[in-house]
Amino acid sequence: MPQQTVGILGGGQLGRMLAHPAALMGIPLLILDSGPDTPAKQVSLPPHGHTQHPDGAFTSPEHIKELARNADVLTVEIEHVDADVLAQVEADGLCAVQPAPGTIKLIQDKYLQKRHLEARGIAVAPFAAVPERPTLADWQALERELGLPLMVKSRTMAYDGKGNSPLKTLEEVDIGQTMDTLVRGAGGNKLYAEAWAPFVMEVAVMVVRNVQGQVKSYDAVETIHKDSILRVCFAPLRVAAGGKGMSEVNRRAKELAESAVATLDGAGIFGVEMFLMPDGTFPGLSSKTPDLTLTPFPPPPPTASGSLMINEIAPRPHNSGHHTIEACETSQFENHLRAILSLPLGSTSLRVPAAAMLNMIGTSESMQPIEDACTAAYGVPGATVHLYGKKECRKGRKMGHVTVTGSSDAQVRERIRPILAAMPDLAASFIDALCTPPRPAATAAAAGTTTSGFSHPQPLVGIIMGSDSDLPTLLPAARILDTFKIPYELTICSAHRTPARMVTYAKEAAGRGLRCIIAGAGGAAHLPGMVASETTLPVVGVPVKGSVLDGVDSLYSIVQMPRGIPVATVGIANATNAALLAIRIIGSATPETAADLAAYARDLENEVLHKVDKMEEIGWEAYAKQVLKK
Amino acid sequence: MPQQTVGILGGGQLGRMLAHPAALMGIPLLILDSGPDTPAKQVSLPPHGHTQHPDGAFTSPEHIKELARNADVLTVEIEHVDADVLAQVEADGLCAVQPAPGTIKLIQDKYLQKRHLEARGIAVAPFAAVPERPTLADWQALERELGLPLMVKSRTMAYDGKGNSPLKTLEEVDIGQTMDTLVRGAGGNKLYAEAWAPFVMEVAVMVVRNVQGQVKSYDAVETIHKDSILRVCFAPLRVAAGGKGMSEVNRRAKELAESAVATLDGAGIFGVEMFLMPDGTFPGLSSKTPDLTLTPFPPPPPTASGSLMINEIAPRPHNSGHHTIEACETSQFENHLRAILSLPLGSTSLRVPAAAMLNMIGTSESMQPIEDACTAAYGVPGATVHLYGKKECRKGRKMGHVTVTGSSDAQVRERIRPILAAMPDLAASFIDALCTPPRPAATAAAAGTTTSGFSHPQPLVGIIMGSDSDLPTLLPAARILDTFKIPYELTICSAHRTPARMVTYAKEAAGRGLRCIIAGAGGAAHLPGMVASETTLPVVGVPVKGSVLDGVDSLYSIVQMPRGIPVATVGIANATNAALLAIRIIGSATPETAADLAAYARDLENEVLHKVDKMEEIGWEAYAKQVLKK
Repeated sequence: MPQQTVGILGGGQLGRMLAHPAALMGIPLLILDSGPDTPAKQVSLPPHGHTQHPDGAFTSPEHIKELARNADVLTVEIEHVDADVLAQVEADGLCAVQPAPGTIKLIQDKYLQKRHLEARGIAVAPFAAVPERPTLADWQALERELGLPLMVKSRTMAYDGKGNSPLKTLEEVDIGQTMDTLVRGAGGNKLYAEAWAPFVMEVAVMVVRNVQGQVKSYDAVETIHKDSILRVCFAPLRVAAGGKGMSEVNRRAKELAESAVATLDGAGIFGVEMFLMPDGTFPGLSSKTPDLTLTPFPPPPPTASGSLMINEIAPRPHNSGHHTIEACETSQFENHLRAILSLPLGSTSLRVPAAAMLNMIGTSESMQPIEDACTAAYGVPGATVHLYGKKECRKGRKMGHVTVTGSSDAQVRERIRPILAAMPDLAASFIDALCTPPRPAATAAAAGTTTSGFSHPQPLVGIIMGSDSDLPTLLPAARILDTFKIPYELTICSAHRTPARMVTYAKEAAGRGLRCIIAGAGGAAHLPGMVASETTLPVVGVPVKGSVLDGVDSLYSIVQMPRGIPVATVGIANATNAALLAIRIIGSATPETAADLAAYARDLENEVLHKVDKMEEIGWEAYAKQVLKK
Repeated sequence: MPQQTVGILGGGQLGRMLAHPAALMGIPLLILDSGPDTPAKQVSLPPHGHTQHPDGAFTSPEHIKELARNADVLTVEIEHVDADVLAQVEADGLCAVQPAPGTIKLIQDKYLQKRHLEARGIAVAPFAAVPERPTLADWQALERELGLPLMVKSRTMAYDGKGNSPLKTLEEVDIGQTMDTLVRGAGGNKLYAEAWAPFVMEVAVMVVRNVQGQVKSYDAVETIHKDSILRVCFAPLRVAAGGKGMSEVNRRAKELAESAVATLDGAGIFGVEMFLMPDGTFPGLSSKTPDLTLTPFPPPPPTASGSLMINEIAPRPHNSGHHTIEACETSQFENHLRAILSLPLGSTSLRVPAAAMLNMIGTSESMQPIEDACTAAYGVPGATVHLYGKKECRKGRKMGHVTVTGSSDAQVRERIRPILAAMPDLAASFIDALCTPPRPAATAAAAGTTTSGFSHPQPLVGIIMGSDSDLPTLLPAARILDTFKIPYELTICSAHRTPARMVTYAKEAAGRGLRCIIAGAGGAAHLPGMVASETTLPVVGVPVKGSVLDGVDSLYSIVQMPRGIPVATVGIANATNAALLAIRIIGSATPETAADLAAYARDLENEVLHKVDKMEEIGWEAYAKQVLKK
């Protein structure tokens, strides 16, 4: 291994997370930042021949040049560096720089970034320049173009929502005063405006390209922001996208992200943040003024055929890829190093079924809330705490994160609840929306009903039936799944009366995270087979007994599928076995579920053995009288 | 979080791997070892108030005491420390020590360690003391007790096979000369003797106990040694153990390891190495002299009802737990820190379906072979390189390891092949035995047959049938699985003629890594249902058509199972659909398999569309003549 020294501009948490794979791969690092023990420097001894990491600002031309003289490749963990000096360093042949200095410079100005993408035919959320001293007429023109509210943003030096202000109305406030606020909000930087995006969901894709031009992207994730700071991230993306399924939105998100990154020069990892829009929202106004204080994240999962539009791109590892450390075959950090060092890119596949990333954000100068979140995380299986080693806590500062992996979406969302609950700035409604129980107790109480009998928002099994008259036959399946605590949904879906609904249901099922579909139907029972034709999931068919032919018609209709499309058929009206089969399917890949099945089998055995004892005790004549009559 | 400083005696690779979770959890470390940049010190800046980590031997009383004055808890990453000083430090109240100094001291002497375990009823491989100046009569007594060959081992300062010598015979060599060799081999330390263990497999379990006494153990792994050094480790353990299945051997291995650790004081992680023996081997001699140069690792997976016996225990993180970093919900290193700091223990569950760990061992002073192995690993999906940052390479020195995760045992064993092939000291036969292809081409050529038509040693699907007359019906299932490259096995297993075999097969299937069983049977077709009664795996039943009743008898016998035991029934003689159903079951948890299924569905669609075109082109009259006659 030619041991190329990598110089990193910036020694914060992203540098810290780069330092770990660098150590694993034996890559010497020089980290430029002010102070001897920034987060990254805490975990990386300077390489042989250096007594310490360079101590200076990552914006300082002198320090950058000196770093370049001591390194083989420079890279950044923050884009707010002096890109001109980087270009000079590269031009002078001092050192390679990845990604390209021009890319870093372009991305520093969000307005130019968007112009660049738009000019190359990449879908971006509508935006416009704001003149240096805008008049009321200017604002009115912007309103006509982008609608209200609009987001006024700083073109440069913006991150984690810093420099962003919403402009809600032109009538009710003094525009001059508003402008003062906006300009102050943007720290005196130039401004631009963006249309308010009434998105269904925020989505991010990490794309990595190595020096040789090999490109890989990670599966899209759902990102949830609070106060313009990323707070929670879910992988994989689950969205019931208008008849196309997750894989379709995921495919399109990756395609859009890759095509955007293809317009940018240089090697490394890029974080691409996107909006998933309900159809036909842009261009134009959103019909109702959204609540500006809360990002919408509606349960149950949104349905959108969804246009995707890029919000912004980061030319470096990104917060929306932190889950890749535990959840993917190669992390974004290792892949960034591989990319800039001409190594082959690592696999971007998930190595776990589901994961979530929770940011630990300072709420004040007190470290206590962070410590409380860590303590909660230590009690949660599958949770890994990542503290960044920052000495001082501040409101809005990223102090660390927790990654939680699990065997299903539902399990991950259950696991994160106590950790989120330990964060004092999160409202119960925010937490409930992310970790929705099958049906909120409050709603049930208001409706005067129980909380059972409602679909779980992150189901592993779908129970569908051709008609509500099949419900009594299918109900035992639901009860068995309840017993095993397997999240499921139950609905009516008729092959003959709602064919479009059936096709949509089948196509979306895998993408929504289902692992198995139980379909019950009677007579010319087409539902199981037709659903099986539109999904790759295993479909369990339950023949429902009709008024004639004793269910044999249903059995034959379900079991005698043509070669190529299998249906797993169970006995006539035996929904219990359908559910147990679905659980065996889940259990074949989930050890704890397999253990539950083993316990269930022991219970069945004991139940019969108990009857054996009983019969020996009272004799079969009495047994027949007492027990069988019941 | 009360930030307790942990002092670690030893700064090698285990310390390095402890340093990472320590940084994540914000735990300050002080690392005692000679030199400023030992592997652990490279990735952990000394805590606030210290300009450097203590530079000195981890055996030095002065340095240990000084470390104790600066830390809240002392722990070890190597057991060859001065345990008496640790006891003194604890007695003086300078600092807590975990695990207990007495435990470390006991474990330092392998003979006393075994005596301790034996006295407490823990199964250990037979052993005996060797007198200081043994005579021929002493050796003859040892031969009577333990048999030949026997392993003569150093009681102390032994690791990675150092200090071990085999004694093969008492007749053919001069005992005095042999003794010289043995004593030299043991570095002048006291000796003891162990019976040669003709084990079926070596197994290891990591057990962790925290200060409060909470105990967890990781699932057992298979360890493969070469030249007495751990070389490869597989998780989870796969062994067809005499009618009991993996979960049974795993359960007994964990139980034995936990009961052994229960006899040792103190908190922390313990590595427990065991032999899985064929039944009734001990006590007594092995029937044939084993090949002393090679650890046996016979493919296909060994069958053993398997007594388990402890070989040795390490009171610290252990090489056989390195896979836990990527493969488990909490790594052995994080759990060690949690244990000694009174935190709740993290989940020890696997977060991936399968994993392997490959040690990178120096073969000479050249670093090149290590670099070659890394280069190979960078090309393998799911592989993570862990270099230890050692400046000098030596023969037999652990320079790093690679962890490989995957969606199945078969995939992991495929993935590790190119990495093992890049290691110059590994013979092709060693690699072939670990990564066995379905049938070695050489064997097939010798037999004059093809390599197809043989069972894969790490199958995901089992195809069984009641009689060889069912083979023509089941063959299409095998062909479909071949097409999808799903590893499977195929055999005959009759419910009525080989009931014991059937029960064993069903009970062992899940533990051997199968995800689904396809069972074909005709007439009073009991095989699918009876197999389903003895496993938690999904069982797909294929009704075979007999000479009467057109297969309806088989269909009813298979599909009409009682409530509680489901069989996924497909159409009469439709083995194609049985295989596709098995693949859908695997695909429900394995995205790449789901993608293959989607491609298959597209192919089916295109095949029909092609016929549509053909019929339009030539007309249906010609079509009927030309095409349907074929």
